[in-house]
Amino acid sequence: MAIAVAGPEIERLIQLLARLPGLGPRSARRAALHLIKKRDALMTPLASALQVAIDKIEVCKTCGNIDTQNPCTVCTDPRRDPSIIVVVADVADLWALERASATNGRYHVLGATLSPLDGVGPDDLTIDALVARAHDPAVGEIILALNATVDGQTTAHYVTDLLQDANVKVTRLAHGVPVGGELDYLDEGTLSAAMRQRTLF
Amino acid sequence: MAIAVAGPEIERLIQLLARLPGLGPRSARRAALHLIKKRDALMTPLASALQVAIDKIEVCKTCGNIDTQNPCTVCTDPRRDPSIIVVVADVADLWALERASATNGRYHVLGATLSPLDGVGPDDLTIDALVARAHDPAVGEIILALNATVDGQTTAHYVTDLLQDANVKVTRLAHGVPVGGELDYLDEGTLSAAMRQRTLF
Ligand SMILES: [Zn+2]
Ligand SMILES: [Zn+2]
Repeated sequence: MAIAVAGPEIERLIQLLARLPGLGPRSARRAALHLIKKRDALMTPLASALQVAIDKIEVCKTCGNIDTQNPCTVCTDPRRDPSIIVVVADVADLWALERASATNGRYHVLGATLSPLDGVGPDDLTIDALVARAHDPAVGEIILALNATVDGQTTAHYVTDLLQDANVKVTRLAHGVPVGGELDYLDEGTLSAAMRQRTLF
Repeated sequence: MAIAVAGPEIERLIQLLARLPGLGPRSARRAALHLIKKRDALMTPLASALQVAIDKIEVCKTCGNIDTQNPCTVCTDPRRDPSIIVVVADVADLWALERASATNGRYHVLGATLSPLDGVGPDDLTIDALVARAHDPAVGEIILALNATVDGQTTAHYVTDLLQDANVKVTRLAHGVPVGGELDYLDEGTLSAAMRQRTLF
């Protein structure tokens, strides 16, 4: 019935918005209506911001970060310490660490954590690229900044084993990260403290 | 710091997404990341759905509904009873009534409810257009489907006064126990109204 009334174009917009994390069907309808009411102030700018993102954003071929330049801003920043690689599961975790100014190192985005239940295996992660980077003589430390969940710690152990032949110190975030907690939900103070108190793995 | 890392284009996308109802800064970041990861499956379709909406969606000059045709699908549907006008504050309310298949009448969208505290006065609502429609001899009933809030009921009274010269019956939605509602959770006003307006079983 909603289709017949609002028209297929609006219904399509609602359906797409409902696929964003955090928006259910009801809030997607409210968001669509809000966009339509704020056509010039919000809908048009959002449409062009999306188009810019579509045209410009790439995955960094070095670290897996997303950016409008490739290699990304972090990888090419000369003020960043090239001897430290901070391994994260997801770009969201990279952003969280950056918001906390938790590290001056560079990153490596695995893309996920190992999760046998979800069918995520080693080949789904960028582990080979990480091992290759770890063999660069300029790299001295690999900091595993992974969720303190079963999957995160499984991934940490798996990665650590593969890094044994590389001449690097492998560390992990201090406990301070609550057990079961996810990085993206932590406050900046906790993240900074966990980074400062990282321990040998 | 997030700007320096993610680039101004991504930051702009996040800021625009954060202005959608239901998305805060954190969920806007997650939504942006989700869109970037699902570039072909979600971001590109959403960008074009927004562009279609920008190009095609109009406010119905008769009732205030939004649609890709003008007058809208409801106003031009010959199966709709032209003698009934259901007055709603917002298109979201129209959609809710349509999802419920609650009426076979047509609509009139006021645009808001009167709210002196928020600076919303009669001139901000499409009340003049409603009064004009009510004087059409084909119209026999105006159903006020407004929120059961102070602002909604103030608006209902205001509109009813202005409709006194029109030859129409003015009705409002019944108060009562919501379907599936538990008495123990309802306020006293609702319970007394439901009791007063009780119907034969
Ligand atoms: Zn990079
Ligand atoms: Zn209409």
